[in-house]
Amino acid sequence: MQVIEYPEKAMWKEMLARPAFDTKSMERHVQNILNFVERDGDEAVRHFTKTLDRAEVENFAVSGEEFAEAASRISDELKQAIGQARENLEKFHAAQKEEPKVIETTTGVFCWRKSSAIEKVGLYAPGGTAPLFSTVLMLGIPAKLAGCREIILCSPPNEQGKIADVILYTAQLLGIEKVYKIGGAQAIGAMAFGTETVPQVYKIFGPGNQFVTCAKQLVSQTGVAIDMPAGPSEVAVFADETAVPAFVAADLLSQAEHGTDSHVLLVTTSRRVIDETLIELDKQLAVLPRKAIAEKALENSKAILVKDSAEAIKILNEYAAEHLIIAVENADDAADKIVNAGSIFIGNYSCESAGDYASGTNHTLPTGGYAKAFSGVSLDSFVKKITLQKLSEDGIINLGRTVELMAEAEGLQAHKNAISIRLENLSASGR
Amino acid sequence: MQVIEYPEKAMWKEMLARPAFDTKSMERHVQNILNFVERDGDEAVRHFTKTLDRAEVENFAVSGEEFAEAASRISDELKQAIGQARENLEKFHAAQKEEPKVIETTTGVFCWRKSSAIEKVGLYAPGGTAPLFSTVLMLGIPAKLAGCREIILCSPPNEQGKIADVILYTAQLLGIEKVYKIGGAQAIGAMAFGTETVPQVYKIFGPGNQFVTCAKQLVSQTGVAIDMPAGPSEVAVFADETAVPAFVAADLLSQAEHGTDSHVLLVTTSRRVIDETLIELDKQLAVLPRKAIAEKALENSKAILVKDSAEAIKILNEYAAEHLIIAVENADDAADKIVNAGSIFIGNYSCESAGDYASGTNHTLPTGGYAKAFSGVSLDSFVKKITLQKLSEDGIINLGRTVELMAEAEGLQAHKNAISIRLENLSASGR
Repeated sequence: MQVIEYPEKAMWKEMLARPAFDTKSMERHVQNILNFVERDGDEAVRHFTKTLDRAEVENFAVSGEEFAEAASRISDELKQAIGQARENLEKFHAAQKEEPKVIETTTGVFCWRKSSAIEKVGLYAPGGTAPLFSTVLMLGIPAKLAGCREIILCSPPNEQGKIADVILYTAQLLGIEKVYKIGGAQAIGAMAFGTETVPQVYKIFGPGNQFVTCAKQLVSQTGVAIDMPAGPSEVAVFADETAVPAFVAADLLSQAEHGTDSHVLLVTTSRRVIDETLIELDKQLAVLPRKAIAEKALENSKAILVKDSAEAIKILNEYAAEHLIIAVENADDAADKIVNAGSIFIGNYSCESAGDYASGTNHTLPTGGYAKAFSGVSLDSFVKKITLQKLSEDGIINLGRTVELMAEAEGLQAHKNAISIRLENLSASGR
Repeated sequence: MQVIEYPEKAMWKEMLARPAFDTKSMERHVQNILNFVERDGDEAVRHFTKTLDRAEVENFAVSGEEFAEAASRISDELKQAIGQARENLEKFHAAQKEEPKVIETTTGVFCWRKSSAIEKVGLYAPGGTAPLFSTVLMLGIPAKLAGCREIILCSPPNEQGKIADVILYTAQLLGIEKVYKIGGAQAIGAMAFGTETVPQVYKIFGPGNQFVTCAKQLVSQTGVAIDMPAGPSEVAVFADETAVPAFVAADLLSQAEHGTDSHVLLVTTSRRVIDETLIELDKQLAVLPRKAIAEKALENSKAILVKDSAEAIKILNEYAAEHLIIAVENADDAADKIVNAGSIFIGNYSCESAGDYASGTNHTLPTGGYAKAFSGVSLDSFVKKITLQKLSEDGIINLGRTVELMAEAEGLQAHKNAISIRLENLSASGR
């Protein structure tokens, strides 16, 4: 980690810049894959699965036997763990349901909104070195709670043409029956355009490598919605003298092990915390299976010493971390002052891993500074909020003149007429 | 209007297709404007304002005197109308505030979310033939209620370098002080990148012509959020024998007058309603100032006769109208069955104009079928929902083993360690 002491404000922008994550350069390649999938459907998907994932897959759809076999190979202990995570996620996301509230804005004018599930959604769960079944929970649970009618899941096959057991087990547990052994840009194309096997969806969710991210961006310009723009994962830790350096180091490493492009930031008022964290990092890093990845990520990462808490908060709001761990005295007060972050972890026992897996919050969060304008995935991501209104005779009488005047001032006579013709009709009938 | 009787399901897709709205062809031109604005700031904006809007504007920022003069020229009657609209919009949008709800998902594990305003937002209000001050209300009110710290507004100047009085009056009424006389793609570029005069924002809202829409799409790929993809405005009317053809015609025309590319759809179980609506259309069209525009829009529009209500609902859900007027018996029941729409207007007295101006609902809504996956603008559009969590000692003890098991199953050892090191620490201290 690079240590920066008391940076001038003019330095902040450069200091907080994320490693470049440019998908522009691969756009032509990815667009090409998407075009073939749109035109040739399953045949194109089969071709790219063979050439890119090196897997021969005849039937992309996971069969009932495959689900059953996968489930039989999961330990009871892991099943129980997944069960607890599921329960917590369900509790937290169910509380996000919004009941219609009818507001009478003017006497006789009733307005409300209702949540309506997005009918068809596609989820993507990366495979590869880490079978991210937690992503299936994070996307599948709110999709089910929202009441999405068709939920499909794509995940890349390994060279034997299989998806990891635990991904299949988790999907089946949630009642997601349409699971396809397709990965990369071809999976995004299949869900965006539909193929003979894969149904077309209205919105695509989930993390992935740069090809997946690029493909999501490209299809989002053709009318398919996506959850959010995505980039490498990141954590910021705000620590003071009361923080435990061993915990801080463990948290930084839990992010750094994600990928060599992960971004990790320590902001602290204590030089001692930096020194001890650096020592802990070396110690903990030594025994990590993903040491090489984490080491590389740490090279791009920074420990920043600031003069006080107020400055730390300013820097953290400017950074807008995907994950922000607050390990300071009065952590609640500090959290209140954070206005830009994906998810906040308060106090010494709230580590990012808890939220990554099982506390109940969603782990699909805005990266790369997008937390300044975007929220993470929630129940809201799987519904549209449709507004409704109903005007009684009194309602249109009470509101009509206002609408007429405004429409006229905008030069939109037909808008005005739609009111006038009704008012005249009521007047003719004696009102 | 084209009349289609009892269409086969196989025809629906073509029948419901919107007129093409392709901004691809202008991308190079718009990108060029954006590039110049990013590089040269005010100078580029001044250049494009001169060449494209034919206005010489030295100082883009609207001055205090300009605001005062504008206000003095607005009639009291119109001020009152705007006041009522404002009050209704505030009531409806204030009710969308979400108070934090703390959920204890597992004993000692507390999760909640808080709404945090997007700090810097840019609003765009089209000028041109119709000074759309209603857009200032629709965007400015939720921005203020959300607590956005910096709210700026761009609107194109006329050839005298002025913005319409009523737009300035409305902005000032809402407390939006930073108003700039800039339109088109150059306005979007100025807000996305910032110039010497115009502050950079995190999210851009508002309708506009194809240049504005294209510019919003392009800047959205560079890290600025936008409200939603936009296309021409549209209305669908669902009518049965109980509908009033004069009202139906007035509603269709109020949409058709927006632009020649507006899309208008009538779905009905009654041949009589079609016939009488067509007669009414001719009658009402004859006296409209924007007759030529409305006439052209109607050419692309369709009246569809269906066999029953169930089929009408299916067609309407497939169409996913921006505005849907339900003028049938048991309109509430029909509204319940609608799952795809931007905003629904229930019954004979709920005309679209009411919602366009003053009932309280927002008029910034998803067009072009985007209502299948997108919501209209609401208070939510101006906030991020940040999740928070706090684990007590009990919390991590109760949840820790689950996280360890899941992290291990994903092959992410450092994620597991972040828990283990805390559990060991607690265990060492006698817990």
